[in-house]
Amino acid sequence: MEWKSTNTKLPVADQKRLDALRERLDQDAVFELGYPVAFDINHARLAPFLNYNINNIGDPFQRGHYRLNTHEFEREVLEFFAQAARAPADDWWGYVTNGSTEGNLYGLYLARESLPNGIVYFSQDSHYSVRKNLHFLNMRHIMIRSQPHGEIDYEDLRESIKIRRDAQPIVFANVGTTMKEARDNVGIIRSILDELAIEQSYLHSDAALCGAYCAYLEPRPSWDFADGADSISISGHKFLGAPVPCGIALARRRNVERIAHAVAYIGTVDTTVTGSRNGLSPLMLWHTIRSLGKAGLRERVEHALQMAAYTETTFRQVGIDAWRNPQALTVVFPSPAQSVCTKWQLASNEGISHVICMPHVTRAQIDKLRDDIVVAAGKNK
Amino acid sequence: MEWKSTNTKLPVADQKRLDALRERLDQDAVFELGYPVAFDINHARLAPFLNYNINNIGDPFQRGHYRLNTHEFEREVLEFFAQAARAPADDWWGYVTNGSTEGNLYGLYLARESLPNGIVYFSQDSHYSVRKNLHFLNMRHIMIRSQPHGEIDYEDLRESIKIRRDAQPIVFANVGTTMKEARDNVGIIRSILDELAIEQSYLHSDAALCGAYCAYLEPRPSWDFADGADSISISGHKFLGAPVPCGIALARRRNVERIAHAVAYIGTVDTTVTGSRNGLSPLMLWHTIRSLGKAGLRERVEHALQMAAYTETTFRQVGIDAWRNPQALTVVFPSPAQSVCTKWQLASNEGISHVICMPHVTRAQIDKLRDDIVVAAGKNK
Repeated sequence: MEWKSTNTKLPVADQKRLDALRERLDQDAVFELGYPVAFDINHARLAPFLNYNINNIGDPFQRGHYRLNTHEFEREVLEFFAQAARAPADDWWGYVTNGSTEGNLYGLYLARESLPNGIVYFSQDSHYSVRKNLHFLNMRHIMIRSQPHGEIDYEDLRESIKIRRDAQPIVFANVGTTMKEARDNVGIIRSILDELAIEQSYLHSDAALCGAYCAYLEPRPSWDFADGADSISISGHKFLGAPVPCGIALARRRNVERIAHAVAYIGTVDTTVTGSRNGLSPLMLWHTIRSLGKAGLRERVEHALQMAAYTETTFRQVGIDAWRNPQALTVVFPSPAQSVCTKWQLASNEGISHVICMPHVTRAQIDKLRDDIVVAAGKNK
Repeated sequence: MEWKSTNTKLPVADQKRLDALRERLDQDAVFELGYPVAFDINHARLAPFLNYNINNIGDPFQRGHYRLNTHEFEREVLEFFAQAARAPADDWWGYVTNGSTEGNLYGLYLARESLPNGIVYFSQDSHYSVRKNLHFLNMRHIMIRSQPHGEIDYEDLRESIKIRRDAQPIVFANVGTTMKEARDNVGIIRSILDELAIEQSYLHSDAALCGAYCAYLEPRPSWDFADGADSISISGHKFLGAPVPCGIALARRRNVERIAHAVAYIGTVDTTVTGSRNGLSPLMLWHTIRSLGKAGLRERVEHALQMAAYTETTFRQVGIDAWRNPQALTVVFPSPAQSVCTKWQLASNEGISHVICMPHVTRAQIDKLRDDIVVAAGKNK
């Protein structure tokens, strides 16, 4: 017996619409500097896998009935990032998610199951999805001040935890805030919890942006399991360039096992959020790490850092008040004219915008944006 | 300026692993009769879109900054299924999800926000993810008995709601249970709520499996908005054959607007669960509905129903005690030998297994499975 799928007939007008979409995307990709999405990796090699209904349902470390999965490749991806995040060798678990919102939801879910009476602390620079997730999970939470450059205010965090010592603290750390790519220092947060002699706590590291390259920075930022995190979320469609939203959720296995007991009670050993899971995205991440390796990833981040330094310098040279956090790919500056924001797909928030120097960004793009900002500012004078 | 992605170099040994994976998937696709996944639609035409980082972040009906999206195609997909589910013309909203677990989570989330003191009623034949979702959302719930063929026991439901009239009922209806493809009758459930003179209630229709073809069955099952549902979840990777898990979440717009107010308060108008959203899967669903049209979908379900009827008949002719619900693609029978379940990827639960006659299933496959069951049973005698 053989298995074969059928080429469907698409009306000519509809094929034209697909062609027009490609043309539009080609244009939109050139004029995109505002989002942390890497466009440099070609995944054409994986096209044949569009022809299979791959489903990585359930736990990637368990064998299920449905065999059209890529669990084997998924486990290698997880192993790669568990090492990069210095997970304790025999005490980690993870899965490939549909993006970092899911990875963060998972971390918070583990925290809630571990510490049912806990309070979540997170900085005001956190992504909006954090509050959405907390609302979803029905968790008590307190927002902490940020420092002007976007990092959490450790004194405010310490004082807030100190006056609520009856409740177990759950700290949600941003390793790369959305607007300024500021990194909350996981080691400092852990030392605050230690100083206050808190017995039970949970620390989630939202490393959606920076988790893909923190391991290759010198000095190494304080962000991972060895630094004190209990769970970590990393995006696959940002620096790692997967063409569909995906991510890596990693956690200490003992916390996951606590959930596993709870879900076994309700009749399943599936500890993931989604159940049916995309089997193509783990293959994309595998393809990326096997093609580039650690050396390739390191080169990409070095190149991107150089482009960020160039952007900051060239913007300042023409009078744009640009700045960036140490070792950041994100260059922050006062929001330019609306026409410029629209053309280059720049997000604006409280008067600031940013360029995120993903590995594919070129000097030609940066120079053009710089000139556009200057010209538009001249017109507005 | 032009934009171009780079073909990465994949080590030869790794390319061989991808080739081996394809060979394995080709085999596994032939010997798969236990899961509701249609393999007949080829999506090769969409391969070029693997080269873009499409992200349908946020609300498909709102314009965002990031332009590499397929919102336009997503809206057409939603419109198609809103019509099939007879959504009220000016009072619906929806988005393409990562699968039906997310669509069901979304429906339950809407229910919780609408009726904070509600109790969720669902039958014991519900998918395990329902209890996982309820645990996630921290919702009170009561499990209702099922009838032997898998449909909810309406008397038990009526009595359970009746004795708790102080709490608003939220009913989770299965339109196609996992094991037996039984369909809870949405109209009957609505009439129970009406009879009990309940002012506030919520009815979610989990039509993961059957929502893709109920509209083409005669008589039409009672499952949709016109029958009384407040929200509906439909899978895209089951009958509709998308090669990655995805789905369609649909809801009455007024309930979504209630959520929108809540999330605007926390600083966003994004009412989806995930934030960053896959932009390739709406394109796959669009490709399917534009290629096949309603006529093509109707033909596919008629073909699948004939294959299910054939399966039931030919199994019974050789003494296998097979049966199926009316208009079901799922044929249920006593679990065969473990070797047969493993070979054909059949799920087993409480002594029963099933074949799900998706449109690609052939007589040759059914006959081979039938013979395998008979031979294995002979050996075990």
